[in-house]
Amino acid sequence: MKTRRQFFKLAGTGILAAGVSSAYSSPVITQHQADARDLFKLGMAGYSFKEFTVEQTIEMMKRAGVSNLSIKDFHMPYTSTKDQITSVISKFRAGDINPYAVGVVYMKTEQEVDRSFEYAKMAGVKLIVGAPEYALLPYVEKKIKEYDIRLAIHNHGPDNPLFPNAADIWNNIWDKDRRMGICIDIGHTRRDGKDPVFDILKYGSRIFDVHIKDVDKDTKDGKMVEIGRGIIDIPGVIAALRRIGFSGMCSLEYEKDMKDPLAGIAESLGYFRGVMQCR
Amino acid sequence: MKTRRQFFKLAGTGILAAGVSSAYSSPVITQHQADARDLFKLGMAGYSFKEFTVEQTIEMMKRAGVSNLSIKDFHMPYTSTKDQITSVISKFRAGDINPYAVGVVYMKTEQEVDRSFEYAKMAGVKLIVGAPEYALLPYVEKKIKEYDIRLAIHNHGPDNPLFPNAADIWNNIWDKDRRMGICIDIGHTRRDGKDPVFDILKYGSRIFDVHIKDVDKDTKDGKMVEIGRGIIDIPGVIAALRRIGFSGMCSLEYEKDMKDPLAGIAESLGYFRGVMQCR
Repeated sequence: MKTRRQFFKLAGTGILAAGVSSAYSSPVITQHQADARDLFKLGMAGYSFKEFTVEQTIEMMKRAGVSNLSIKDFHMPYTSTKDQITSVISKFRAGDINPYAVGVVYMKTEQEVDRSFEYAKMAGVKLIVGAPEYALLPYVEKKIKEYDIRLAIHNHGPDNPLFPNAADIWNNIWDKDRRMGICIDIGHTRRDGKDPVFDILKYGSRIFDVHIKDVDKDTKDGKMVEIGRGIIDIPGVIAALRRIGFSGMCSLEYEKDMKDPLAGIAESLGYFRGVMQCR
Repeated sequence: MKTRRQFFKLAGTGILAAGVSSAYSSPVITQHQADARDLFKLGMAGYSFKEFTVEQTIEMMKRAGVSNLSIKDFHMPYTSTKDQITSVISKFRAGDINPYAVGVVYMKTEQEVDRSFEYAKMAGVKLIVGAPEYALLPYVEKKIKEYDIRLAIHNHGPDNPLFPNAADIWNNIWDKDRRMGICIDIGHTRRDGKDPVFDILKYGSRIFDVHIKDVDKDTKDGKMVEIGRGIIDIPGVIAALRRIGFSGMCSLEYEKDMKDPLAGIAESLGYFRGVMQCR
């Protein structure tokens, strides 16, 4: 970078006109190396592939150059046996996909909490992205301790009275086991009139997972758009994630053109990576 | 930005812990507004749509959210009548596409030069992206003066002895009419072992058009990849374009997966826009 900066300096002083050697000795850095400079990684929230089979999901993720996946239940039903779960996980792994979490998992009863932790354990993941009823949180905390599996509670904005934003999650979990945390959905956060940059900085110590997306308005009727086409301050989000030392996944949850999402997924991940590339 | 910076400052000092109001008053800036802060705009080089009809091209460009096009001859043959050309141009305009140039046009004889300028005039564009034989440049200069249509000569790297890089173009045009300039292809530049950032800064005064792309190696056998997956320093390219006050088009010439290019086009434009968003 020193050479490059010096060059810009030269360009400014007019020394260029005198003829500077064009020897180009910058190291070759590919995008994957560039990504590797950040602690956090890109992934996909399984919901994006609602209309597709496991095989199609693998194929699309390969095209988009992304390998981390939070598995949604339509690809691996909660009622699956251990063998069925192993089979789905194996398919993903054979396709070079890393299933790092399950979710979003809703839990309305203690039985559903039990089932969710068993399900995550069978899947071999150490993270559940979920939304248990408020009253179940003490019971969920027991399970977290029993299984040593983390729970990242997902906020759903103004659509849902259950955990609208990160502040609400924080207020309900701050005194619980530190393995109970937040999956901040930056789109629902913005649709809830909140600033995801602010929330990431403020609640960063308990953010385990991030759902990345973009929206066209900061109100309930805001619609999802390709990342970069909406109003979310993506450079600010990335700066905030770096600031808190976030080392989890930024998983794209793409909910537009759900029957033909590949172009939008590719554009969104491309945009996010482009911003990541800038320092 | 002041508020955001102050906030980061607060976050660093721990004042956040005391509880800062989360009032969010940042202005809503959409990507199109963000793009508008730059003098240059995004476009597509028609060659990207080699396998597709005019209608399919319009459809894909709409999906990718890009509207400026340099038309390639397979969509509008050089032998077209005025009516045929008007019909193609009208189709693009009706699809909200702005045909801002024709090319890449190769010119091997004076007759082909004549035909090219007449073709551009009939198309109503003020820019030809092309590659005339070296010996024809004095004749081309006459045509530029006669038609008041600019020519941006395209460099083709190590594949082609005709204009391998911007330095070679510059050496052949510096003393010609100032409407004779350069379409710098950053991919071929890099494959020719040159640094596109350096060349943009050095030859900026005559750069009229830019072909954006990425490559995986800085040698002749370098292959095209999605922008961001290769070795080209895109933040450096954008900084250089800003430095020279470039006000033309950065047109993606996408030559990978040519039978199914939409995902790669979307990812490439997304990445470029992501970098543009950062300042």
